[in-house]
Amino acid sequence: MTPFVHPFDQAIELARAGDGTFSGRTSTHYWNAISPFGGTTVATLLQAMLAHPQRLGDPLSMTVNFAGPLQPGEFTVRVTVARAGRSTQHWQMEIRQAGDEQPAVTGTAVFAVRRETWSDTEATLPDVLPPGQLARYAPPVQVPFLQMYDIRYVDCDPLAGGPDSTTQCWISDVPPRRLDFPAIAAYCDSFVPRLFVRKGAARPISTVTLSINFHVDDAALARQQGRHAFGKARANAFNGGYYDQEGQLWAEDGTLLATTHQLVWFRE
Amino acid sequence: MTPFVHPFDQAIELARAGDGTFSGRTSTHYWNAISPFGGTTVATLLQAMLAHPQRLGDPLSMTVNFAGPLQPGEFTVRVTVARAGRSTQHWQMEIRQAGDEQPAVTGTAVFAVRRETWSDTEATLPDVLPPGQLARYAPPVQVPFLQMYDIRYVDCDPLAGGPDSTTQCWISDVPPRRLDFPAIAAYCDSFVPRLFVRKGAARPISTVTLSINFHVDDAALARQQGRHAFGKARANAFNGGYYDQEGQLWAEDGTLLATTHQLVWFRE
Repeated sequence: MTPFVHPFDQAIELARAGDGTFSGRTSTHYWNAISPFGGTTVATLLQAMLAHPQRLGDPLSMTVNFAGPLQPGEFTVRVTVARAGRSTQHWQMEIRQAGDEQPAVTGTAVFAVRRETWSDTEATLPDVLPPGQLARYAPPVQVPFLQMYDIRYVDCDPLAGGPDSTTQCWISDVPPRRLDFPAIAAYCDSFVPRLFVRKGAARPISTVTLSINFHVDDAALARQQGRHAFGKARANAFNGGYYDQEGQLWAEDGTLLATTHQLVWFRE
Repeated sequence: MTPFVHPFDQAIELARAGDGTFSGRTSTHYWNAISPFGGTTVATLLQAMLAHPQRLGDPLSMTVNFAGPLQPGEFTVRVTVARAGRSTQHWQMEIRQAGDEQPAVTGTAVFAVRRETWSDTEATLPDVLPPGQLARYAPPVQVPFLQMYDIRYVDCDPLAGGPDSTTQCWISDVPPRRLDFPAIAAYCDSFVPRLFVRKGAARPISTVTLSINFHVDDAALARQQGRHAFGKARANAFNGGYYDQEGQLWAEDGTLLATTHQLVWFRE
């Protein structure tokens, strides 16, 4: 009997191909309209650093730039340490594909060994219904990766249209999967595009750059029992063919997992 | 008679030293406690791209990682185009100093040619007193770069201490200077550290990584008459020796200039 491997773990699976170099393959399960779901791309880069023998501590922050198109098939991930101190480590990363002279994806990341300090969370989990009391959202546009996420909106039809792009929802993998750093990274790109929320319908969009700040370490993640995360996202501005998105992501017990920001190209 | 050159323009001045390579020098005016004010470092990197002959359009987004210490004196900035399309351009950047084998600063940026589209700003300028009706804040800690900014808080003593790290203030250069992309980038790092706001006093802190999303193009900036920007900043969480900061920056006429996020190392 073959043990069950979650499709997400298949999607971000990497084979070591050299010093800091890994080979991977785009996933049909996590395919978007014309390119891979960006969340798996971000998670794959994170996975490369987590799997690197020089890795120090836990991810603190990462920025991923979607510079060019990723074609279906194999790709090469390269992650290198630009500078390391006693407790922090700065990474550079890129994804390339055969036949393309330039990187399709670039980015940087910071890892760190966290330590006990005074702590406080100002961004608290909104007072909302638990995921078990809400219905799974059925998106009108059926791209493959949307089947891999169970999204439950707490207060709205995300495609109702209107003056405020804020959405609030529970997010979990299909089938359910533990909350780890790659899952959190992918969730950070899973929010329905803010332009769709405002316009009440899908439009051509493409994330240009995405940043994530992580607010938990591996030990705090290991304590999580729930399989859902709660996400709140909004835009600051739509202007000149681009808009931004700011998001916050909590665990079911109220732990703030990550905050994220992206800039998105759009066409009306 | 020597024409007046603003100290900020002196601080970010670069001499071309080769293809994508520039030499600069740390500024005594914009020195912080033990290192250069990070805002001038970010602005200097931006200046290098703005001055680059291959530059396409206006800055859209940038992430700067403060990987190692910058010593007083000369440094080398290197900015390279990782990938360019018809309307977007992805940059990689670093700062190095002689005698240090590793980069002190790394980062990525996206430039783009904006185009006319539907636009809307959800993050509107708060209804506050204009800068002329408020007093300049006199910071209790006198590090050089703080003399170069005129900060006027609208609703609080930023060092009162308390459960909410939010601050709101007008920011301008000393002496006044036009709002351009380097100034905006520097303003994004000028907010009083959120830890100081919570603890009511200065503590050892160090920005690890900072991202900026710009929401204006050069033409919109050129229309600005005011010399003040309005900044609102807050933290989501303090945890394990790090905290984050999210900020928004508007022009006096309500134009959203930029949103910014950083992650900061701290000691209690």
